[in-house]
Order: sequence, then structure tokens, then C-alpha cells
Amino acid sequence: MERLTAMQYWDKKQKRAQRTQQKEKALDQTVLEIIQCVRNEGDQAIRSFTEKFDGVSIEAFMVTEEEFNEARKSVSPSFIKAVKTAAENITQFHEKQLEQSWLDMSKAGTMVGQKVTPLDRVAIYVPGGKAAYPSTVLMNVIPAKIAGVNHIYLTTPPQADGKINPYVLVAAKEVGVETIYKIGGAQSIAAFAYGTETIPKVQKITGPGNAYVASAKKWVYGDVAIDMIAGPSEICIVADETANVNFIAADLLSQAEHDEEAQAICITTSIKQAEAVELAVQEQTKRLARKVIIQKSLDQHGQIIVADTMDDAFAIVNDIAPEHLQLMIAEPIEKLGAVKHAGAIFLGNYSPEALGDYVAGPNHTLPTNGTAAFASPLGVYDFMKKSSVIYYDKSSLLAVANTIIELANTEQLTAHAQSVQIRKEE
Amino acid sequence: MERLTAMQYWDKKQKRAQRTQQKEKALDQTVLEIIQCVRNEGDQAIRSFTEKFDGVSIEAFMVTEEEFNEARKSVSPSFIKAVKTAAENITQFHEKQLEQSWLDMSKAGTMVGQKVTPLDRVAIYVPGGKAAYPSTVLMNVIPAKIAGVNHIYLTTPPQADGKINPYVLVAAKEVGVETIYKIGGAQSIAAFAYGTETIPKVQKITGPGNAYVASAKKWVYGDVAIDMIAGPSEICIVADETANVNFIAADLLSQAEHDEEAQAICITTSIKQAEAVELAVQEQTKRLARKVIIQKSLDQHGQIIVADTMDDAFAIVNDIAPEHLQLMIAEPIEKLGAVKHAGAIFLGNYSPEALGDYVAGPNHTLPTNGTAAFASPLGVYDFMKKSSVIYYDKSSLLAVANTIIELANTEQLTAHAQSVQIRKEE
Repeated sequence: MERLTAMQYWDKKQKRAQRTQQKEKALDQTVLEIIQCVRNEGDQAIRSFTEKFDGVSIEAFMVTEEEFNEARKSVSPSFIKAVKTAAENITQFHEKQLEQSWLDMSKAGTMVGQKVTPLDRVAIYVPGGKAAYPSTVLMNVIPAKIAGVNHIYLTTPPQADGKINPYVLVAAKEVGVETIYKIGGAQSIAAFAYGTETIPKVQKITGPGNAYVASAKKWVYGDVAIDMIAGPSEICIVADETANVNFIAADLLSQAEHDEEAQAICITTSIKQAEAVELAVQEQTKRLARKVIIQKSLDQHGQIIVADTMDDAFAIVNDIAPEHLQLMIAEPIEKLGAVKHAGAIFLGNYSPEALGDYVAGPNHTLPTNGTAAFASPLGVYDFMKKSSVIYYDKSSLLAVANTIIELANTEQLTAHAQSVQIRKEE
Repeated sequence: MERLTAMQYWDKKQKRAQRTQQKEKALDQTVLEIIQCVRNEGDQAIRSFTEKFDGVSIEAFMVTEEEFNEARKSVSPSFIKAVKTAAENITQFHEKQLEQSWLDMSKAGTMVGQKVTPLDRVAIYVPGGKAAYPSTVLMNVIPAKIAGVNHIYLTTPPQADGKINPYVLVAAKEVGVETIYKIGGAQSIAAFAYGTETIPKVQKITGPGNAYVASAKKWVYGDVAIDMIAGPSEICIVADETANVNFIAADLLSQAEHDEEAQAICITTSIKQAEAVELAVQEQTKRLARKVIIQKSLDQHGQIIVADTMDDAFAIVNDIAPEHLQLMIAEPIEKLGAVKHAGAIFLGNYSPEALGDYVAGPNHTLPTNGTAAFASPLGVYDFMKKSSVIYYDKSSLLAVANTIIELANTEQLTAHAQSVQIRKEE
């Protein structure tokens, strides 16, 4: 990890190129061709891309009830119990996000408001590969369910044996997903964005994926909604002398294990603590299974920043706009007001990032790479949309008729003006 | 206008290619080059693109106080009064959208919640060209103001004389915009997305624009937030025998005048009414200034659909997911529940689209081209974002420790498991 003072942080920032999204033309072109191929050739294109990229030939895309049952037998009861506990907390939190329609009738003769309705059909992408991500299933499906989405389709790439990871299947069944497809990559994003003979066109696609999936989501954005373009993941821990150094190290490492691009940052007001954290990070890394990834992440992106004051520390936090922010300081709740930009804020010594990743209730799908300055965690609001409602009676319209006509004529939209004029003259 | 039965509508839909966004590679490449040029060369690039595209050489990008004052003198008092009336209603409506932070403390020893904060810096694009769009200024600036955005920058292309449209300037001043830039096109989107020597990098860019602006917004999306990719605009009027045929025609025409791609659709349960609407549309078109555009729009995209029942009519409405929906029927409010997808819903004979475009209060920036099935009108929520808040005390964490460890290990994220294990063993 690199050690910096606050001043060095700001100085370095000036010189550093922003970690913006890669405009990888070659990848983007490949993905666009995959998308166009799926639009033109439908299921047949999906089958050949699945053979090419996943190395498996599949006839039926949909997971059968039999496969569900088989998966259920292969997982432990303690896993199922853990999924149930997590699902319960996630449900309880997200139910509080449900918005209501409202109507303002404060002016007689008029009514304006906002009608809130769920999306009809959404697709949730769950990454495949070696690892299983049942928590991704819970964090995407539960808010969609609470929103009232009628059709929730889950899609995930098949393994080499043509099956789906059993943990993903069991988690999906546990939260009531009816339909799961064995398709991955850009081809699955294209299929759900435009529909094929057997794949339904949806209104929104959410969930994380590799570079192909991210590029495909960006291409189809506008024709369907997407959740976000996820970038590298990061943690920022603000610590004072009350923080447990071993906890700080463990939490930094939990972030660094994600991948080599992940970033772990600790901001402290004490040089002594900075030194202790560095030592603890070194010690703990040795014992971890993913130490090779962790070491690369720390070498490339790890930072320990020593700030003179807490104010300096929070200025840096708000500049970083971290995905995960842990406040391991004496009065963390009192400092909530100082945080302007963060995906999720973890308070105190006993609220590690891993708590929020799995079980606390809030969503673990968070804006990454500084986008917390303008984006929100995934939520029920991502699966609902609003319609404005406008009612004016005759006299209420006539009272504002001249205002409308004035503005419409200014904009040279004379048929707009006429549509009001005709009602005046009636 | 084309006359269809409900059955013909569905049949035609099967055969018709969806009006999806144009993946115009050539335009997209040009725009990407403009963006990269602005990122590399900053202000100098902006100046040369402004010279190339707007035909004017500008030194200072910012509008001066003097230019404001000059603009103020050139507009009529009735325009200023109209802007004030509209701004007041828009403010009143949007204030109701303001969300509050919340904390759930129902389980002792834990606290989870959602902190809502405004964006810091946003840019609002206002189209230039021959026409002025002061209503665009109001509809974008007011929600940003109410959200509490600190820095609102407005940008609009300069006229050939190097000045800005006075109506836009006066409207901007009226709603408290401090800083206006004379930059348009893809170069302005790039400038605000990445910043230059004199243009501040923002967190979100909103507002409508031409094909270059739309493509640039799509390229920078992810590095900054954008409001939406606007497509062609549409109106759908559901009418029964209580509707005034002349009003229907006038409202269809107000939509058709936008541009040749705009779509005007009327759905009625009466053939007699369909015929009367067609006649009224023909009659009224003759008298309108923009009749050439209107005629092309109607010829290409205009439809009158005769449905057997109101249920059939609403099935078509929800399939279209229109930007503007007018319910000119006997009991429009009672039918609100039947509408699943629409940008804005106008109720009764005296709530024409133009009312909502300017003065009713709800936003006129609406999801177009069927995207109302998954997107919302622009609102205060577009200028705010959420952070999750998580606090667990020691015993609360220990109570869920095994759940976290089980799930983290399933996902092979062993450093996540370790970050909780270390707290168990303390």
C-alpha cells in the first residue's frame, strides 16, 4: 500500500488520469456484432455464441424443475438457512423503499400528481464462471419482487456440463423466481433487450457481469433500462485511535480480494495507526486464500492517507465518493452529516463491509468508481416508474390559457397555442 | 392518418420493426472523436468546434451580466409574467417530490437506513437554433434547485451573432441560474462530462438536444449521469362519445407539429367519431403555421384506431406506453387504474397536452418512444441520490456472523468471511 499525506493525495489527484470507463473500441465493436446477430437470427445465434464462449451446446435455455430439485439436494441445510436469514433482512429493508402514488388537490378544479407503477418484465443477470453468487440473486430479485414486477427472469451462463451453479438455483427458488435461463454474456443481454422466439423482451436488465456484459448493457441502454455500468469496486475506511487496527486490515483485505482492480483506502489522523495498519495488512494477507489477487490490488491501488484533521479526512472521502465507506471513529453516527457522497456508509467497529454485502438488509449493488457522487444503491425504486397525472376543469384551464399561449408562441409552437385557444373560444 | 381496427393494430405490430434507437455507427464515431478531442485539447477544441458547427468564433464562453440585462430589455412584460406563473406551478409540484432520509431502528443494537443527498454540480443543455425554449429551462432548473444542487450550469449553443436567445436567458435568470455557457453540440457534453481549463466537470447532464447531443450523452453515460436518450415524441388520445372532436384534433396536431417523426394516435370506440376526427384534423391543419411538418408527421405516423371496447383501447395504450396520454372519456379519473405505462396522463376535455408542457406543474421532460414502460418524468429525484447507512453493535454482528461466513465461503470470498471471523474471535 502507498502511504500519502492529505496534501499528497490532492497533488496526486491533479496529475492522475481519472479512472474513467474504458472506451474499448475493439471490444465494443465485437459486442455490437453479437447484439446485431442475436437480433437477426434469434435463438440460433444464442446457441452458437453459447457454444463458442461457454463451450457447451444447449438445446433448451430454460432450467427445468428437475434441475431445481437436483440442486436443492446438493446444497447444505446451513446454506439454505443462511439464505433465508439474509432474504428476510433484505426484504424488511427494501419494503421501506416502496413509494406511494399521490395526488395534490389543493387547488379546486385541478388535480396534479404522480402515479407509481412497477415494471412488467425484468431480466436479472447473475455471473457464472467458477464462483457462485447467490447473494447477487437475493440483492436483485428481492427489490424487484417488492416493487411488484410481474415477470422476473434470471439468466446466468451455463457451466461446461450445461448446468447452472446449484447455489444460484437454490437462492433463486428461495426468493420465488419462476424462470431461469442458461444464457450468459453479451448474447443474453441482446436476447432480453430485443426478444427472440423463446426469450421474452424485457423492460430492464440488472446485475453485474464481465466486460462483454457491461459493454452490451451500454449498447442496449435506451431501448431497455439498465441498472448501472459497474466499474472497479472500492472501500474507504476512515479511522481514528478508537478503531481496532486488525479489523481495519481485515476489512481492507476483504475489498482487495475481489479483483486486482479493486481499491482499498484507509484514511487516518495518526501516523502510528497508519504504520500499525500496514503491518496488520501484511500479516493477515499471508494467511488468505486469495493472497495473489490481494497483493496485486494493494500494490496497484492500495492507499493509506494520513490526514491532519477529521475535516481533511472527510474532504478526501467526498472527493473519492467511495462505494463502501466505513467510519471507524469515536462518534460515527454524529459524523453522518459530513458524508456527501458514498454508496453505503458502515458505522463503528462492528459494521464491516461484509455485513452489508450479505445480511444487514441494504443492497450490496452500489455505485462504484466515484459514481456514488451521482448514483444510488440498487433499490425498489429501480423497478418502478412514475407517470404524471394532470386534471384541470374548464375554468381552471381558462385561468392559465393566456400563460400557455404566450409561452407556446414564444417557442413558435403555434399548434400548441391553438389547442388552448380553441377551448377558450368554445 | 391511417385508420386501423384494434386487431389490425396488433397484427401490424407483429410485422413492424420496433422503432428502436438508431445505432448510427458513422455519427457515433464522429461524436466519439469530438469527445476525445475535447478531452485532449480542452477549451481550444471547444472553440474550433463552435466555429465549425455554430459558425461563430467565441473567446469567452460565459454569458456576462451585461448580456443578461440586454436580454431582459428585449422581452415583453407578458412573457416575464408567463414565466413567473409557470415557474410557480412547477415549483409547487416538484416540491412534493422531495424525499427524506430515514433510519430504521426497530431492532435494538442495529440501525439501517437511507441518506438522501443532492448532486453537487449539474449541467443543463438547452437546444438552440431558430427557436427559443424557455420552458426547457424551467423544467430542468427548477427540480435541480429544489433538490438542493449547489452548482447549476446552463449551456446552449450561440447564435451566429455570438449571442444567446434572450427568452432562454431571461427564463434562466428568473429561476436563479448563475452561470450560462455559450456552447452547444457534442463538444459541450464532452466539456461538462470531463471538464476543461474553464468548464467545470459535472456529475449529471440533463436536457434535450439534436442527434449529436444524444449520441454524446450516450458515450459519456457512466462517467457522468444523464437524464435519458430522448426519441421521437408521441401523444395517444383515448376518446369516447363525450369527447369534443375539435379538441381531439387540435391536441393531435399540437403533437404533430414537433417534427416529422412525432406520432399522433387517437383510439376511439366509435367509427363515427373516428371519421369526425379525421375531418377536423384536415380542416385545422390548413390553418396552422407548421402545416408542412404536421402533414408529414400525420402521413408517416398518425393513426386512428377503432377499438370495440374500452378494455381493448387500454390494452393498446399499455402496449404503446405513450409519452403523453389524454383520456377524453366520460370518467377519466376512474380509469387511472387501467393505465400501466404512460409518461403523463391528462384527464378530461380541458387538460390538453399543452397545459402540461408549460404550466400545470408536472415536468414536460417525459420518457418517449415506449420508454414510459420503464422510465419516469424528469423530477427532483433525478438530482438526488441515496447512500445506505448500516450500524450494528458487537452482539448484533455476532448474532449474524455465521450467516455471513456461510455465504462468503460459498462465494469463495474468504477474506470477507475472515473480516467477520476476526471480530468473533476478539
